[in-house]
Amino acid sequence: MEFGTLVHMHGISLVGYQRGSAGGPSFQAINPATGAALEPAFRTAAPEDVERAAQLAAAAALDYGRRSGAEKGAFLRAIAANLETAAPALVERAASETALPLARLQGETARTCNQLRLFAELVENGSWVDARLDRAQERASGPRKPDLRSLLRPIGPVAVFGSSNFPLAFSVAGGDTASALAAGNPVVVKAHPAHPGTSELAGQAIISAARDCGLPEGVFSLLFDAGIDVGVALVQHPLIRAVGFTGSLAAGRRLMDLAAARPEPIPVFAEMSSVNPVFILPRALQSRGGAIATGLHASVTLGAGQFCTKPGLVMLDHGAEAFVAELAALMQQPAAFTLLTAGIARGYQTGARERAAHPAVRALTPPAAAGVTAPALFQTDAAGFLAHPGLAEEIFGPATLLVRHGGLSELLAVARSLRGHLTATVHGTEEDLREYADLLPILETRVGRLVLNGFPTGVEVTHAMVHGGPYPATSDGRSTSVGTQAILRFARPVCYQDWPAFALPPELQDGNPLGIERHLDGVLE
Amino acid sequence: MEFGTLVHMHGISLVGYQRGSAGGPSFQAINPATGAALEPAFRTAAPEDVERAAQLAAAAALDYGRRSGAEKGAFLRAIAANLETAAPALVERAASETALPLARLQGETARTCNQLRLFAELVENGSWVDARLDRAQERASGPRKPDLRSLLRPIGPVAVFGSSNFPLAFSVAGGDTASALAAGNPVVVKAHPAHPGTSELAGQAIISAARDCGLPEGVFSLLFDAGIDVGVALVQHPLIRAVGFTGSLAAGRRLMDLAAARPEPIPVFAEMSSVNPVFILPRALQSRGGAIATGLHASVTLGAGQFCTKPGLVMLDHGAEAFVAELAALMQQPAAFTLLTAGIARGYQTGARERAAHPAVRALTPPAAAGVTAPALFQTDAAGFLAHPGLAEEIFGPATLLVRHGGLSELLAVARSLRGHLTATVHGTEEDLREYADLLPILETRVGRLVLNGFPTGVEVTHAMVHGGPYPATSDGRSTSVGTQAILRFARPVCYQDWPAFALPPELQDGNPLGIERHLDGVLE
Repeated sequence: MEFGTLVHMHGISLVGYQRGSAGGPSFQAINPATGAALEPAFRTAAPEDVERAAQLAAAAALDYGRRSGAEKGAFLRAIAANLETAAPALVERAASETALPLARLQGETARTCNQLRLFAELVENGSWVDARLDRAQERASGPRKPDLRSLLRPIGPVAVFGSSNFPLAFSVAGGDTASALAAGNPVVVKAHPAHPGTSELAGQAIISAARDCGLPEGVFSLLFDAGIDVGVALVQHPLIRAVGFTGSLAAGRRLMDLAAARPEPIPVFAEMSSVNPVFILPRALQSRGGAIATGLHASVTLGAGQFCTKPGLVMLDHGAEAFVAELAALMQQPAAFTLLTAGIARGYQTGARERAAHPAVRALTPPAAAGVTAPALFQTDAAGFLAHPGLAEEIFGPATLLVRHGGLSELLAVARSLRGHLTATVHGTEEDLREYADLLPILETRVGRLVLNGFPTGVEVTHAMVHGGPYPATSDGRSTSVGTQAILRFARPVCYQDWPAFALPPELQDGNPLGIERHLDGVLE
Repeated sequence: MEFGTLVHMHGISLVGYQRGSAGGPSFQAINPATGAALEPAFRTAAPEDVERAAQLAAAAALDYGRRSGAEKGAFLRAIAANLETAAPALVERAASETALPLARLQGETARTCNQLRLFAELVENGSWVDARLDRAQERASGPRKPDLRSLLRPIGPVAVFGSSNFPLAFSVAGGDTASALAAGNPVVVKAHPAHPGTSELAGQAIISAARDCGLPEGVFSLLFDAGIDVGVALVQHPLIRAVGFTGSLAAGRRLMDLAAARPEPIPVFAEMSSVNPVFILPRALQSRGGAIATGLHASVTLGAGQFCTKPGLVMLDHGAEAFVAELAALMQQPAAFTLLTAGIARGYQTGARERAAHPAVRALTPPAAAGVTAPALFQTDAAGFLAHPGLAEEIFGPATLLVRHGGLSELLAVARSLRGHLTATVHGTEEDLREYADLLPILETRVGRLVLNGFPTGVEVTHAMVHGGPYPATSDGRSTSVGTQAILRFARPVCYQDWPAFALPPELQDGNPLGIERHLDGVLE
């Protein structure tokens, strides 16, 4: 199939290699910059679409789950190539649906394709399966020790929820889909209703790649819904074996609770809420205060503050007046942002207004005009912060809260009070780090990534990246949703006892035909 | 401290390095062979004991969690040495509390010590942390790629529930405790009320080792309770970060639900219920039927059928009459077992009576006298099995159910109907395996371990062992509770961005000072 012929939208779910039902209620995307409804209308997936997508995925799992790394890699690369072909249409549509700048969306498309190719490399290499071989052994007493061989196998059909804030990299063909497909699992995506057109174009890229690679129908489906029924049905469907989600704490927790209440509970990997504390230590402040203020302002306002790694909490001692004045001036530079949806904009404006009115808080930026999204800088002190846990909650958008403290012991008390976050950042000289050595062990238990002398908003897609963290940053602090370790969410170990070579996966056969890294009796081969 | 001086029981919880409160209600262990109550009485831990154990564990986590692999290894080895010193007392007490034979308990003590030493080796070697280093890089466009380094770090205080059926290897100093301690986590054990004395002796071995190794108070605590209050309070305690459990489906699911409903949900690793299907294929039956019958009988009745890997479901075609007669004769050999507790015995006798009376089932062994625990063999056919899902449920004790089928397509239908199990076993010749090639891919999605031409009841403690499987076999089919991979349950990845060597864990420092396996930009160093 020529993928080029598919780069237009039908507004109907993609259920395996068919279109879904066209009879349900419809909704349209809204251009957040203009308020205009965008064509075409999208039909809500019907219950039978959910059922068919799940059934097809379960049937496809037995075939696709046994495809080689080379075959899965070719599929992921074909998706990336199709996305590149579709990039002009994708970026244009995404810009209309999200109000994100074209350059950002072009960058995000490239990131999405690189991410798919990184997972392709990972499964082509094949060592990710953690192959372990323990040899049989006769024993003086008792029965012979059997031959045991284990590797990671796919978990089964995965439901993925597209996020609003990254319409490409964390959406239909984003990290959850890429890592679930790489592990050998069929994927059913529930499209985010704020960018259904972008979702359909990306979904077509995946479907076209699946056909071209000769993969079984059901390896991928895409379902539309402006409400929650389709998502709820997916998470409750007995054939769905895991869930990937990026979004709000309220929605993520809802999915966690649904999954935990199933007759057979399944894991939910939800990335939800993070305020990303920043600790600016005194010598760093003294030597680089201006650069830190500039960098912090850029990080808080990047993408209109709609990054899950936006620094929303900054710990500074009482002597940092010049820095605070400088940051406050930057935050008051004329800037009016268009947020992703009208709902997010209302939420931000309300959150900022309430925080400004909080008795323990002083606003360092003037109130924005009604209906305007402007950067906001707030300040409290350590006592106020510790007394009001609500101040540690996320305001999604370009706002941040300074917490002024009286030195090491107050700083450590604030650190100990933190819940789970994706990141924590420290600005410090070597001397600062030695003086504040007790800080790092505390932060390490609270976050997935510790940044030194930088800003948390750049999330590289690499092997060592951890984009995770204890609840409520994610549903499971043992996981990452970015980087190659994300594949481990969607795999489970299986052990073969005394099987002959012909019945074993090639990863476990004698002679190591795939040439992967393996451990033999615990020692690297 | 001389451990030898501690080998007697006080009947009071061990809370850090202190005894718990002695004022609560008390209970005694019962010798299941005689019905006699055993001295001493054990005091139920008070709410303040739970609170102090959790607080001490959380405080200890920051210190113990940063101890080197060598220090953790020395601790695990010291526990093993103390258990060996205490072995005569441990085995004697365990025999009184469980009615398990001395030889079995001696073997289980050795297994427990070997398991502790295997985890010691694992952390002394240090490569288990999956160290990943991605180098910094200047880029033509955009900001520099940062230096990213990740490794697995401890999850935090772990609550462990001792199991009834392995009073040593899956109890106080068993696999959950060993793997949680190896990962760097303090452990709070809720002792199983059926063997509190064995629990206290094992707990003393751990406490004594912790003191001798200079570890912080709270790295280990042991709480007694004949009821559920202490366990519930532990799982709900905000400072507890994960749970390990081996026991019944009802109790395990209760803990899962409690953990999922917390303000901050935590992972529960519960090993619960498994019927361990066995598929005997025709050529294997023909060539080795006698040996399979003997082995199956031994496996079903091993430990009075109280193994979680007991084969409780056997698929055979209609032509297997001679085999069935042989197995039925073996199962009718005079044998009366004493089960672990009076409750388990009642449960078994009721379960066996109900199954014998099931309309789709024929009993191939005569009914046991009232109050007697005798082996039981039942038979149904594929249609009956598929029509009555209750027949797939576990009867804990020496019973098994034959499912007679009409060949490949019925066999596959039965396989597809299976829920999650710890193991599946196939008896087959090479020709059988080729003819029934569609069976393995189905079974692989249902279990953690696939056994060929053997029996599932031996669970080796090795690197490749997977003692896990999809729900309801465990709460999380992505995990194993036996073997070195069990450590991964209690660890989470943490990423360091741009940190200097002195502030990094040694596992991530330049030059690889610990000489562990690491991946540099995705390639093994």
